[in-house]
Amino acid sequence: MLRTNLGQRIPEGMRDLLPEEIAVQERLETEVLTLFQHWSYQKVLPPTLEFTACVQPDVEQVDSLYKFFDREGRILALRPELTIPIARLVSTRMRGANLPLRLCYGADVFRNTAVRYREFRQVGVELIGAGQELADAEVIALATEAIACLGIKNYQFNLGHMGIFSGLMLEAGVDEGFQAKLEEGLARKDMVGVERLVQTSGLPERVQELLLRLPHFHGGEEILDEVLNWSTLPTIREAVESLRRIYRYLNDFGVQANVSLDLGILRGFSYYTGAVFEGYVAGIGFPVLEGGRYDALYADFGAAQAATGFAIHLGSMLDLFPLPSIEGADILVYGSDNKQVIHQCQVLRAQGKKVEMALETMDEKAAQNLASLKNISEIKRAGEEVSENA
Amino acid sequence: MLRTNLGQRIPEGMRDLLPEEIAVQERLETEVLTLFQHWSYQKVLPPTLEFTACVQPDVEQVDSLYKFFDREGRILALRPELTIPIARLVSTRMRGANLPLRLCYGADVFRNTAVRYREFRQVGVELIGAGQELADAEVIALATEAIACLGIKNYQFNLGHMGIFSGLMLEAGVDEGFQAKLEEGLARKDMVGVERLVQTSGLPERVQELLLRLPHFHGGEEILDEVLNWSTLPTIREAVESLRRIYRYLNDFGVQANVSLDLGILRGFSYYTGAVFEGYVAGIGFPVLEGGRYDALYADFGAAQAATGFAIHLGSMLDLFPLPSIEGADILVYGSDNKQVIHQCQVLRAQGKKVEMALETMDEKAAQNLASLKNISEIKRAGEEVSENA
Repeated sequence: MLRTNLGQRIPEGMRDLLPEEIAVQERLETEVLTLFQHWSYQKVLPPTLEFTACVQPDVEQVDSLYKFFDREGRILALRPELTIPIARLVSTRMRGANLPLRLCYGADVFRNTAVRYREFRQVGVELIGAGQELADAEVIALATEAIACLGIKNYQFNLGHMGIFSGLMLEAGVDEGFQAKLEEGLARKDMVGVERLVQTSGLPERVQELLLRLPHFHGGEEILDEVLNWSTLPTIREAVESLRRIYRYLNDFGVQANVSLDLGILRGFSYYTGAVFEGYVAGIGFPVLEGGRYDALYADFGAAQAATGFAIHLGSMLDLFPLPSIEGADILVYGSDNKQVIHQCQVLRAQGKKVEMALETMDEKAAQNLASLKNISEIKRAGEEVSENA
Repeated sequence: MLRTNLGQRIPEGMRDLLPEEIAVQERLETEVLTLFQHWSYQKVLPPTLEFTACVQPDVEQVDSLYKFFDREGRILALRPELTIPIARLVSTRMRGANLPLRLCYGADVFRNTAVRYREFRQVGVELIGAGQELADAEVIALATEAIACLGIKNYQFNLGHMGIFSGLMLEAGVDEGFQAKLEEGLARKDMVGVERLVQTSGLPERVQELLLRLPHFHGGEEILDEVLNWSTLPTIREAVESLRRIYRYLNDFGVQANVSLDLGILRGFSYYTGAVFEGYVAGIGFPVLEGGRYDALYADFGAAQAATGFAIHLGSMLDLFPLPSIEGADILVYGSDNKQVIHQCQVLRAQGKKVEMALETMDEKAAQNLASLKNISEIKRAGEEVSENA
């Protein structure tokens, strides 16, 4: 049936990957997954579809899920990320696995927002059953090595802690609604909005000053001391000292130079509870890597476990890499007798050659033309010797 | 937020792939895709989401699509197969590519029916701009080699032709409604239903007899001669002789022994126009491979081209293969000083070792226990020599 205009189009935010594009994505994914496996992470793959009751139980939340009803009227969603599906998987089919459990994945995720790509490849890791700061440091170090292994020289990580922000909120005595709005503004790095929100909050001036300074607490260990000058609340002190230990481990891993402390970062997912981090690369204006500690999520699945991890938005980085030229076959087999052509192809394939079979009877000149068009360096007339394609 | 019962479950027809399961699927996919590339097919990847106006323009058709509305009220669907999306891709972004064009893919497809797996991996090829019988033979031969390369010894292909069935329908003078019902019954191999349908059709006895014999036209070249005895209609004669030539080419490819002619096969997709085939393997009661010629589809996208291809339902075949044991890391590094542990891990990783880092301070006995649980053969105390894990 003849397609309408719509039927000939690709939906918004979707894309076709041509041979050279899929080659780039697969090469990058292989590099990173090989690194993950080198750090003893094992691959798993949850399905594309989940119940929204799994991936987004809070129906109040504004979301970007691709959602629809199943035959029984339950709401299904295309996975927007892998951390929650893997928590479901580990809490069910892998319950009882030896901890700590190191898992990794490479899979497409789907977000129905007005961004360029609404389906894109993610690769990432989850380190489950590991509450230690050494575990935080392991995944952050692995994250920086993953970006580096892609051949990217110019990258920058920011590292913060949810406990510092929530402690400061507690100390400031703000209500939940205000905190949620502030959190959202900070996560989106909407500094104008944050400023307006704080200035109209009616909070004491000292608290306002603190909140407005938060996004600018950015640098090395010295900013941690500065926070301790602002507050003596034990939860804040604990978060600060935990972050300090993690940051020092990064020095032991040899990756600290690419990581700044940033107390204003708040990752967009609601499940983060501790150290959180994000990675930027030159040429892309949003984080290509996001991660952090989420110690409460597994309890939501009835199998409480500390956990940390990260995801790289690999699909958003493809444009950074030059497209390879796609090799044609090694040899084009042609001739005037199809039986001989078939036989010759099978013989050459059995020798390990990548062979393209001419489907039309053709002479040498026509075969040379076809081979040139298809980037094939040799031609062979069935039943004769191989000759170079001039 | 604590998950409900539903929120801890996986939707019907979905599955999680654990490390040993994803390892099987990836190994099989790599084998087959490598073979396809050896035959000069290049990989492409359309998106998961398409407009239904693309993948199923006929709104009357009963379907098994996972469907939902986008923000503009248009209907999106999860791809149920790749042939149509690739036709859209080739007719748009690849328009003008040198023909014949050989493309292949490995991707999940989605079918909302009451089968075991509603998301499953498919691998397949499309040979576009190739109306020759040699092209039909190429893809059928490649299909049999793909099944063979998986290590499957016991497989059987059936090969038919849409033109023979539609010619016989024309000759019998049946109406479209009857033909559609008969086609559906034959495609589902519902022989009881087919018999009832034919016997209550009111068609002449000779035609009834022919229709009931159709599913039993199964064997070698001799059945083609039999069909010619039944009908002298030129379209039937042409289809029969075309099928004969394809079948003889399969002999030249050395794969004819695994292919039977079967004039009752009718593939489920509406786009097939010529030679059609299906592959069965021991242990699975439905075809794991389906393909055929679809010479009308590209015209529907305004870029008329002859084409043929096939898809293997790889995801339905995983149970046929033993699960591999998943290797642990090469070495577990432990100790009492985290800085030393980190350093030792980095040194060993730089040497190419697959290293697991103990996150807790532990002694040798505890490290041996952990290594045993995790299938790691060596342990190393940070700062000391590597020792075998007893």
